[in-house]
Amino acid sequence: RHYCSRMDQGQGMLFRQLFESVSSTYTYLLADTETKEAVLIDPVLETVDRDIKLIDELGLSLKIAVNTHCHADHITGTGLLKRRLFGVKSAISKHSGAAADILLSEGDSVNFGKHCLNVRETPGHTDGCMTLVTGDQTMAFTGDTLLIRGCGRTDFQQGCSKKLYKSVHEKIFTLPGHCLIYPAHDYKGQTMSTVDEEKKYNPRLTKTLEEFVDIMKNLNLTRPNKIDIAVPANLVCGLHDV
Amino acid sequence: RHYCSRMDQGQGMLFRQLFESVSSTYTYLLADTETKEAVLIDPVLETVDRDIKLIDELGLSLKIAVNTHCHADHITGTGLLKRRLFGVKSAISKHSGAAADILLSEGDSVNFGKHCLNVRETPGHTDGCMTLVTGDQTMAFTGDTLLIRGCGRTDFQQGCSKKLYKSVHEKIFTLPGHCLIYPAHDYKGQTMSTVDEEKKYNPRLTKTLEEFVDIMKNLNLTRPNKIDIAVPANLVCGLHDV
Ligand SMILES: [Fe+2]
Ligand SMILES: [Fe+2]
Repeated sequence: RHYCSRMDQGQGMLFRQLFESVSSTYTYLLADTETKEAVLIDPVLETVDRDIKLIDELGLSLKIAVNTHCHADHITGTGLLKRRLFGVKSAISKHSGAAADILLSEGDSVNFGKHCLNVRETPGHTDGCMTLVTGDQTMAFTGDTLLIRGCGRTDFQQGCSKKLYKSVHEKIFTLPGHCLIYPAHDYKGQTMSTVDEEKKYNPRLTKTLEEFVDIMKNLNLTRPNKIDIAVPANLVCGLHDV
Repeated sequence: RHYCSRMDQGQGMLFRQLFESVSSTYTYLLADTETKEAVLIDPVLETVDRDIKLIDELGLSLKIAVNTHCHADHITGTGLLKRRLFGVKSAISKHSGAAADILLSEGDSVNFGKHCLNVRETPGHTDGCMTLVTGDQTMAFTGDTLLIRGCGRTDFQQGCSKKLYKSVHEKIFTLPGHCLIYPAHDYKGQTMSTVDEEKKYNPRLTKTLEEFVDIMKNLNLTRPNKIDIAVPANLVCGLHDV
């Protein structure tokens, strides 16, 4: 039993991974195939039309558009989705500082039909970062907390490498080894990983806390292009100046 | 039973979708989780290092690197994989005109452990186009024959819109409706579709043959940048001038 067969337990769940190439962001569509209720994780402003078309063609009804955190590299599609589709609610962590219809915290769940996503608070990249885990623990949407063979930066937006390390080890690496990891971004064309793989091969998170803090301190990354536009916009569901 | 739950039948099969962003090509890794035998579909020269690293980390042994057709937009990674990994065999359609260790034709199968991919010849984009279908018919790798809400162009490399239309209708649309479609390319960040979805929403293939031929005749596409380098290289497993 491995990978695909993990999906056994996802009976009656529709799943679609979508990519926005400018910011290399993954958006995830999940739905109950019976009730047709859907959730969209990390929608991007520029791909809202594509996403609405797909939701429509699949005969789904979008209930909740949730962000794993307040993004600095792209503007969320949440606000525009709310404006374009009737009845959609936005959701984000209550620790994000952002406005939304639903403010989530540890242990909360996002329900769609008979399925759900459970909230695990995983601060470190930002204070309001969450990992969303399917009820059967076969899939985890890790946002920028854990990337495939990487992790989110911790040098702005309340970033703290110690917190991130603790979040990954306590809230993600404690999931079943075969749990699929679906991050908010990938820059190398990788689409998924597993808890086991990251525990074994993540070049940063397999290090000691001290080594990890050191690695993160010395990344010398440039400031994201869009941060001064994206963060203020994302604090209000992306509708700022749209 | 829908989408993910399709994977029920893929028990013990590892599956990984990979993306090369310059040519927007999808490479697919499939393996038997018990025997560790793996197949790579449509590897790209530029991402061979990434693919070898993943194969290695997952403890797999690559048996066959197969191309769905002789690509015009990128150089295949097949030859380099053969050079870098011991025992890999290249495979392509016998109608492609390209050299390879294994020349495939209708009804042949590519075996890896207890799993297999069955060859359906689907000419039209090129004479040597194949669609590879998993033994349980839950996944079809359609190359450039059927894309998500689109199809490959038919204006060069023996392209013939009538043949493509016939191939899609006779060899792909006859698969189970829930069979997942995994194409060789997507330019909009879509990662998969299903037979049912394309039968209903493909803007070209839902038309009559006459309308389809007309659409394809009037696309006025520019010549692919890399065609004069890629095609000669791909006729010899991509090793030409590498
Ligand atoms: Fe972020
Ligand atoms: Fe092609």
